[in-house]
Amino acid sequence: MSGNDSLQGFLAAAVDAAKKAGQLIQEKFYQTKHVEHKGEVDLVTETDKACEDLVFSHLKQCFPSHKFIGEETSAAYGTMELTDEPTWIVDPIDGTTNFVHGYPFVCVSIGLTIGKVPTVGVVFNPIIDELFTGIRGQGAYLNGKAIKVSSQDQLIKCLLASETGTSREKSTIDDITGRINRLLFKVRSLRINGSCALSLCDVACGRIDLFYINCYGGPWDAAAGAVILTEAGGLVYDPSGRDFDITATRLAASNPLLKETFVEALAHP
Amino acid sequence: MSGNDSLQGFLAAAVDAAKKAGQLIQEKFYQTKHVEHKGEVDLVTETDKACEDLVFSHLKQCFPSHKFIGEETSAAYGTMELTDEPTWIVDPIDGTTNFVHGYPFVCVSIGLTIGKVPTVGVVFNPIIDELFTGIRGQGAYLNGKAIKVSSQDQLIKCLLASETGTSREKSTIDDITGRINRLLFKVRSLRINGSCALSLCDVACGRIDLFYINCYGGPWDAAAGAVILTEAGGLVYDPSGRDFDITATRLAASNPLLKETFVEALAHP
Repeated sequence: MSGNDSLQGFLAAAVDAAKKAGQLIQEKFYQTKHVEHKGEVDLVTETDKACEDLVFSHLKQCFPSHKFIGEETSAAYGTMELTDEPTWIVDPIDGTTNFVHGYPFVCVSIGLTIGKVPTVGVVFNPIIDELFTGIRGQGAYLNGKAIKVSSQDQLIKCLLASETGTSREKSTIDDITGRINRLLFKVRSLRINGSCALSLCDVACGRIDLFYINCYGGPWDAAAGAVILTEAGGLVYDPSGRDFDITATRLAASNPLLKETFVEALAHP
Repeated sequence: MSGNDSLQGFLAAAVDAAKKAGQLIQEKFYQTKHVEHKGEVDLVTETDKACEDLVFSHLKQCFPSHKFIGEETSAAYGTMELTDEPTWIVDPIDGTTNFVHGYPFVCVSIGLTIGKVPTVGVVFNPIIDELFTGIRGQGAYLNGKAIKVSSQDQLIKCLLASETGTSREKSTIDDITGRINRLLFKVRSLRINGSCALSLCDVACGRIDLFYINCYGGPWDAAAGAVILTEAGGLVYDPSGRDFDITATRLAASNPLLKETFVEALAHP
């Protein structure tokens, strides 16, 4: 591989695409948004769609043979089936609810899988100007500076992140708040920021120790963050402790020291 | 009143003090902290104490006759009794747990009460460089730009903020997560950022619609935010709907349109 087909070339193209979309997000951030509902509390805006078009057309031009999976998948480029081919998995705005409200936790999340393995990841929050990047085997960075997970090994000293999701089924809400209740006795505190991709990056740079989510939207929320986290020395895994499955909609993340106790706390909370 | 004794003079001195403390917070933010425990999960650091000294000595020099109440109250200046005298109520670092973990929601909170009424407020987050200011009767500002609360009037479209607190009593945790459970059916989503003062400012600038907290640390968490929120067109009140009592450790905040339904949801959630 050389030039644009190297992993560095893939990353550079993804960063360019993320910055283009980020500029649009920033321009629209303080304006009133036209909101559509995917569910009662699951939102999508014109900017989500415009950003996906920007990212896909940029990457499609650079890598015409690659596959594309996006949250707001356009008929022109889209597919939902993950194959071994190089596949760009894109969430044009992770944290759409935050975007709608002007709450500054929004990001563009762009991941590339090769042989189904997350290999390149870019997560860009244009509002507070944080660019997380990672290439499999080549480390993870925040605004160009190497990052690593925390070295915490005691659950009671951990800052935990999670989400309450977009389901309003009683059984789901009961599960979510029941688990939060039981975990609160075991950790230092809980944060909820509304973006799965940013929470993975928060674990990657050590400012969050533990993250789990049981009902995220799809692989676009996790593909990029999984590369960044892993390259920062972290682990992403199924909350049961089994291997991470990018097509599932649940994951847990931590440093390696905490995995066993976190899985136990999640299983028998 | 004139010169330093005008409300504008009080604000200018408070902004100077907040920026001094903010510089120290920023310097220490990415270093390992020496942590003491006030409770199992309630922390205090050397930087909290150093920031309180900075803020108090700056304000004491400007206004020698004023009273001072601080979270880490020093014996030299401190009092806990709120009188009608001009009284500076200071949280040197609101969001100490965030500070310890490097999670970027920390702020200096400086409020001034006159006749027990919150009259001047400064909340400064030095990490993402957001300076919220307010003077009673003269509006509220974020980095010099006027702010106002959201115009949302439907609970189901609201972004709600709260906290899980530092108590690990079973009955308290059960109350907190039970209320979250019941509110999740009525609002769009929940955010938890770890700072009472910043959440009040989030409501003030309209990126959060609703905020409540039942167990915050003391008046230093609310004095500055209450001025800023009120001047942005918002209301701060007891979760029961009664008047806000700055010496209580519970509050709710929203725009005026939402107060009645929010109080009802909090009372019969």
